[in-house]
Amino acid sequence: MAKRIYYFGGGKAEGSKGMKDLLGGKGSGLHEMTNMGIPVPPGFTITTQTCIDFFNNDKKWPSHLEEEVKDNITRLEKETGKIYGHPNNPLLLAVRSGAKFSMPGMMETGLNIGLTTETIPGLIKKTGNERFVYDSYCRLIEMFAEVVMEKAAGIEPRSEELGIRKQLQKIKDGVKKARRVILDTQLSAEDLKEVSDKYKKLIKRVFKKEFPDDSRQQLEQIITAVFLSWFGKKAVFYRGKEGISDDLGTAVNVQAMVFGNMGENSCTGVGFTRNPSTGQKKFYGEYLINAQGEEVVAGIRTPKQIKELRKEMPSVYSQLKRITSKLEKHFKDVQDFEFTVEEGKLYMLQTRTGKRTGLAAVKTAMDMLEEKLISEVTAIGRVSAEHLEALLHPVLDPKAEKSATLLAKGLAASPGGATGMAVFTAEAAVKWAKAGNKVILVREETNPDDIHGMTAAQGILTARGGMTSHAAVVARGMGKAGIVGCDDLEINSIKKRFRVNDITIKQGDWISLNGATGCVYKGKLPMTEVGAGKLLSSFLKLCDSRRKLGVRANAETPEDAKKALEFGAEGIGLFRIEHMFYGKGSKTPLFLLHKVIISKNEKERITALNELFPYVKKDVKATLKVMKGQPVTIRTLDPPLHEFIPKNDKERKKLAKSLKISLIDLGNRAKELRENNPMMGHRGVRLGITYAEITKMQIRAIFEASAELTKRGKKVHPEIMIPLVCEVNELKDQKKIVDNVHQQVLAKYGLKKISYSYGTMIEIPRACLTADEIAPEVEFFSFGTNDLTQYVYAFSRDDVAKILQAYLDRKILPRDPFVTIDEKGVGQLMKKTIEKGRATKSNLKIGICGEHGGDPESIFLCHKLGLDYVSCSPYRVPIARLAAAQAAILERES
Amino acid sequence: MAKRIYYFGGGKAEGSKGMKDLLGGKGSGLHEMTNMGIPVPPGFTITTQTCIDFFNNDKKWPSHLEEEVKDNITRLEKETGKIYGHPNNPLLLAVRSGAKFSMPGMMETGLNIGLTTETIPGLIKKTGNERFVYDSYCRLIEMFAEVVMEKAAGIEPRSEELGIRKQLQKIKDGVKKARRVILDTQLSAEDLKEVSDKYKKLIKRVFKKEFPDDSRQQLEQIITAVFLSWFGKKAVFYRGKEGISDDLGTAVNVQAMVFGNMGENSCTGVGFTRNPSTGQKKFYGEYLINAQGEEVVAGIRTPKQIKELRKEMPSVYSQLKRITSKLEKHFKDVQDFEFTVEEGKLYMLQTRTGKRTGLAAVKTAMDMLEEKLISEVTAIGRVSAEHLEALLHPVLDPKAEKSATLLAKGLAASPGGATGMAVFTAEAAVKWAKAGNKVILVREETNPDDIHGMTAAQGILTARGGMTSHAAVVARGMGKAGIVGCDDLEINSIKKRFRVNDITIKQGDWISLNGATGCVYKGKLPMTEVGAGKLLSSFLKLCDSRRKLGVRANAETPEDAKKALEFGAEGIGLFRIEHMFYGKGSKTPLFLLHKVIISKNEKERITALNELFPYVKKDVKATLKVMKGQPVTIRTLDPPLHEFIPKNDKERKKLAKSLKISLIDLGNRAKELRENNPMMGHRGVRLGITYAEITKMQIRAIFEASAELTKRGKKVHPEIMIPLVCEVNELKDQKKIVDNVHQQVLAKYGLKKISYSYGTMIEIPRACLTADEIAPEVEFFSFGTNDLTQYVYAFSRDDVAKILQAYLDRKILPRDPFVTIDEKGVGQLMKKTIEKGRATKSNLKIGICGEHGGDPESIFLCHKLGLDYVSCSPYRVPIARLAAAQAAILERES
Repeated sequence: MAKRIYYFGGGKAEGSKGMKDLLGGKGSGLHEMTNMGIPVPPGFTITTQTCIDFFNNDKKWPSHLEEEVKDNITRLEKETGKIYGHPNNPLLLAVRSGAKFSMPGMMETGLNIGLTTETIPGLIKKTGNERFVYDSYCRLIEMFAEVVMEKAAGIEPRSEELGIRKQLQKIKDGVKKARRVILDTQLSAEDLKEVSDKYKKLIKRVFKKEFPDDSRQQLEQIITAVFLSWFGKKAVFYRGKEGISDDLGTAVNVQAMVFGNMGENSCTGVGFTRNPSTGQKKFYGEYLINAQGEEVVAGIRTPKQIKELRKEMPSVYSQLKRITSKLEKHFKDVQDFEFTVEEGKLYMLQTRTGKRTGLAAVKTAMDMLEEKLISEVTAIGRVSAEHLEALLHPVLDPKAEKSATLLAKGLAASPGGATGMAVFTAEAAVKWAKAGNKVILVREETNPDDIHGMTAAQGILTARGGMTSHAAVVARGMGKAGIVGCDDLEINSIKKRFRVNDITIKQGDWISLNGATGCVYKGKLPMTEVGAGKLLSSFLKLCDSRRKLGVRANAETPEDAKKALEFGAEGIGLFRIEHMFYGKGSKTPLFLLHKVIISKNEKERITALNELFPYVKKDVKATLKVMKGQPVTIRTLDPPLHEFIPKNDKERKKLAKSLKISLIDLGNRAKELRENNPMMGHRGVRLGITYAEITKMQIRAIFEASAELTKRGKKVHPEIMIPLVCEVNELKDQKKIVDNVHQQVLAKYGLKKISYSYGTMIEIPRACLTADEIAPEVEFFSFGTNDLTQYVYAFSRDDVAKILQAYLDRKILPRDPFVTIDEKGVGQLMKKTIEKGRATKSNLKIGICGEHGGDPESIFLCHKLGLDYVSCSPYRVPIARLAAAQAAILERES
Repeated sequence: MAKRIYYFGGGKAEGSKGMKDLLGGKGSGLHEMTNMGIPVPPGFTITTQTCIDFFNNDKKWPSHLEEEVKDNITRLEKETGKIYGHPNNPLLLAVRSGAKFSMPGMMETGLNIGLTTETIPGLIKKTGNERFVYDSYCRLIEMFAEVVMEKAAGIEPRSEELGIRKQLQKIKDGVKKARRVILDTQLSAEDLKEVSDKYKKLIKRVFKKEFPDDSRQQLEQIITAVFLSWFGKKAVFYRGKEGISDDLGTAVNVQAMVFGNMGENSCTGVGFTRNPSTGQKKFYGEYLINAQGEEVVAGIRTPKQIKELRKEMPSVYSQLKRITSKLEKHFKDVQDFEFTVEEGKLYMLQTRTGKRTGLAAVKTAMDMLEEKLISEVTAIGRVSAEHLEALLHPVLDPKAEKSATLLAKGLAASPGGATGMAVFTAEAAVKWAKAGNKVILVREETNPDDIHGMTAAQGILTARGGMTSHAAVVARGMGKAGIVGCDDLEINSIKKRFRVNDITIKQGDWISLNGATGCVYKGKLPMTEVGAGKLLSSFLKLCDSRRKLGVRANAETPEDAKKALEFGAEGIGLFRIEHMFYGKGSKTPLFLLHKVIISKNEKERITALNELFPYVKKDVKATLKVMKGQPVTIRTLDPPLHEFIPKNDKERKKLAKSLKISLIDLGNRAKELRENNPMMGHRGVRLGITYAEITKMQIRAIFEASAELTKRGKKVHPEIMIPLVCEVNELKDQKKIVDNVHQQVLAKYGLKKISYSYGTMIEIPRACLTADEIAPEVEFFSFGTNDLTQYVYAFSRDDVAKILQAYLDRKILPRDPFVTIDEKGVGQLMKKTIEKGRATKSNLKIGICGEHGGDPESIFLCHKLGLDYVSCSPYRVPIARLAAAQAAILERES
């Protein structure tokens, strides 16, 4: 039988900071502080295992728990010199939850446990403070009614209005009104006694039973309530969101009460050893005089800044500063602490690692490194991808968010904040933006036709699609806020409005997006810039010194390429030729592509391709030039042609006229191109094989662009990448074209060499399975894990949102495989591919391009699998640099 | 230096029948016959390796060839006592191609080689037969001009009209007209001399050079021409079609000429040792008096039946019978032979295995087994899948096909013949068929809505789709002729007609399909039944005694189930629940399914499902009953729901009314169900997970049907199969429903047990990759290789036809992976799956259902991989039984 309870008190604790698993975060902190000689109210911790046993024991106290509680109470009584439940000298208890991982506010707490009609007179007598005792009693009843009795009665208030706590509040408000006072602290002992009497009557009426007037019962019930709160709705939801296992259980900390509400020489407060917002090395905190528990953060009374404590209680202040700075040194990280001062005596109630903003994370890591408090490895580990994301994107002002009207919640597809007027078509977005308005583009879903609208918008909001839908990918690529799959929206793009619940948002109405949480707000919320500059850059350099994975960016324009270099990319891992046909400035090439697609025969097609050629060459050349010899992986035309068939009549007429064919012919040709499952249809290398001339034109553009730069003494290194390969013969076929055009261009420019490599996307399972045959034909592989995930799961990215949500809700899948690579399936195939590929070509370069390349967990996997580099959108390059460093560190450590 | 030439003659040959690789089929036959003491004109064989060397030597004769030819000519001169090119005693030669595999008519032959103005007088003097000599000379010129000179000049006649042979024919026809005779044999020596002179003049005019009048040059050029013909257009195309490698090369047989055209005591003929059409053990053949070479089969003169030879040349006849029967015994198979009688003396020119019809293949195999000529194993090996197919399907009369107008050629999707009036909608097909007409349904492509039309039609013809398109699969499933992907058709279904080339076929015009070749003919062609009955049944029993693989059928109706049992199926490997919603008799359940799909919430859906339930139960019960306890694998609803959304207005109105919703609501719901890539969308188990009630209804139907039969003492064994699984948790989720409903049904019927098993389709790559996790949850796996192939290749079956054709044409893929399992990719994944699956569940049953289950090569692979059974359409069960037996034999032998 394992020990169920660990005692702490009198400068010695049975536990320590290494026992978070068993004692929870709060518990292990209390034990550690006790051992460090820091004043902590004595008490004991019931282990997390006991909580697990409780649930395995049909929600009854498991064996030995009762005895051990009894023994430890006795110990506590000896130490405090008070007796639990004693009429004259009563011990009061605080009972707090505390799991291994911090779950702030998600589970229950009970204070003032042990106050009964029996103990109240003794406590009054002992403290000489009747008001304090009734204040504490009211607090006890409020808490207990909600946490224990309402729960036990199985009442789940639909809105807060109906809950017991609100009903009790009304009673207190009534008394305050009658006494014509505003604050609780203005109520007298008498008043509070009246309040407590009324409380108990209401409770009897509501729950059909008395408020428990027995100390033992109170303790037993509150401990049980804390156990139960592990599977409370809030807690389960929070764990789901944060990826915390349901199997951990919570510990329960039972401590002697100390009272911040014993008068003007008492207070309670919270603080941080450094500023959690900015990271500045400055003692930071707030407190409330004559208060208890959560009042500091509840926002009813405005707390005071910690510096005022220096004046109000100078010795307490300096003691607190000494203690917390000792804690920071001891734990080697920013501490988030709670304290209570009871009649001038300081007690520490909690210490834990402080949560912080991105800016603070980088700042404190770099500062502590400089202070030699932590090592480089630790500094790198202190910053998370979310921290960096927050640093890189402007965000909604968090304060404004709190009071704003939440319209709906969708998938948090692209972080950052955005505010603008709702528009419902790409055209409107462009028009309104040109007129100087900020707009949010709201669409059922987006497609390549919407790109110019997306470019013009501040943020993108869609009702359909998942984390890798078109809207999500483009928004992340553009580094702007995006929320997708927000099914609550009923969009009517014809009437230019959407409805959600009972609110209608019309074109021109302001809305705001928080792309990091998926929240959509009504109105124009203020934004706030984060920014970091040099600090970030030196942090990322530190990361670079540790990582083994290369980091490239996906970019198709000189602007993006420059951005990529700024963010520290070491090359371009994906330059999609088709990208030039999206943006709004591309009317002419897009029209020419339409001509290519609609061409009836090779001759017509070659004519159209020749017209298109200079645009492609120009595009490629501009980016190659910016990259100054760093590798630029250029992927040949990939999407299904029908994506580019003009849909509106005007375009169609123009096209028919230019091709000298009838509209009917045009329609027929378009119909012929229609596919039932375009994702598995005529695209990628399949286009290049059925229409060799399309490949030829692209290769010629790449080589001529390279030749012209080479002649001018510039360095270039294009990497020609063939997409959607399922069979080595496809690569052999296209290689002939590449070799041919290469020779022609060398001759044309009188050059001996143009530096380039030839490679392939690996995105079809069969390419993985036959990687040993493919490898000898190429110099590099680049995993296209978006498509690979589609085919490995048979999940269409465009359609899967609804299914995936159901799968995640029901825990059929642990996470969205389009966000983080599915190691078990897709990862297994990648591993095989790498083994097979390197077995037949040992110097094969292997990378990954596309969405997963910017996801930290996926980057960890890429490192583990031994890839050479990852490539992601420019805005994610810093995150990739960080994750790559962390992956290398993790590997070295394990 | 390997020997280039093998000599045969004088009762002894340097080669033998085992040397087909090196000497070709014809060559090894000639050597073998020589060794057997059978009269064969002496000669020699140039090896296939020499042909390969020729191509590797820039199409020049490789080293030593000239010397070896010279040496062997000398040897031949000694043996025949004639001298090649000698004015008084000239030796003439026959030069014939002969590759390892028979490629009839695909390569070149030269006869009478060595006739020149120098040798003609000597031969006339020696034979005293001037007419014979000039006849032979004319034949030589005709052949040589076409085979050598026209080819060398690089002329490729676009149509036969312009070819040199036709031009020469005109000259001869002119002379015949002038002489007022009809047959060549009526021309005199003088006439033929005139013809030969005119021939040579024309040749000079056309090719700007003389006809070679030198024996050595003639021989060298004809041997070269035979080499070159290995890469002739016809030969390359034929090899592509038959899957023969380009790397084999052809041998060249050079023999002393014997002359069937030396007068009335000479003849030439061909024959079979048994009837190649019926298999009857009866000497069979045709011959022509005073003729040479291919005249017998050319159809200009009508040849005589072999029995007449008995009267005309009794001793030759009996010698021929004796020889050929010796050959059959020696080669232990039906022999296809050629012979020539020169002035009463018989020479054998070829013997080879005779090609035969399906009926003849089975008949001769069983007969020879009874005659103890061959073993059981050999008998099984003698019959091919094509043979059985031909036996099982009625076919177009082959004679009628020869003279019919070919409209177009599509993919031979489902074998058998069909003739009927063209109709262009399913409704028309039903209507016209009801009125007593035979119809062929002609569609752009088919979908489930067309099923009743397909059922009513004799055959199906589509302009789009590949070998596994809906039309192809359904046609094969129905065992009726189907031709798909026939892109030459311009179908106008509104105007009810199609055009192809310049012919228009209107509704009601007769067309005929040969589903085994893909040929579409104009008009009503006569059909012919094959049939076999007892013979087939005893042959298949023989197969059963050898095979290890089980054979099941895919069937969903009692009729199909009965058919499956008739064909020897040992269970049903695939019963698709959705099938009941296709056929024409299913209006009510289809309507109810529409209600299920359009339901807005769970309550509506359950109501609709309850209405649907009795239909599903009845359907399942009927088939379980027929199968009498044999396993029936029932797959839960698989296709994307939107496939079942009613498309026509009338249906929609009815549905909206029944659901009490507006047409707009209906439209919105339908729109919501729309998917971009439905093949990777909301289907299969994903439906069962998002709508548990859909699974519940189906499982209840299966168990209640089973319970009711069990109570009546019938044996049943349903196997519940969950489709489209990518993750074991999906199976766990559905298993809970199965277990629950199982308990409920047991209770309801007061039963202790209902025999059943639980399993899954393996059709998504991720299911393969995680088979070790999946296996412990199920009792069986059934590979869905159609879908698996789709995802492994990222080939959408509905869209891939065009791409696939290009890939096959350009040899990027060796074959259609939807017809024969791709061993390298899909097979590799299957292998892994089986290993992983059996590693965690050793008694896991593994089968395959779907199209590949009926493909012989795929069955071989299934055997090799260690599957337990294959399942295919009832009509392919016999083929599967054969292929499974052959696979077992092959394995034992290797």
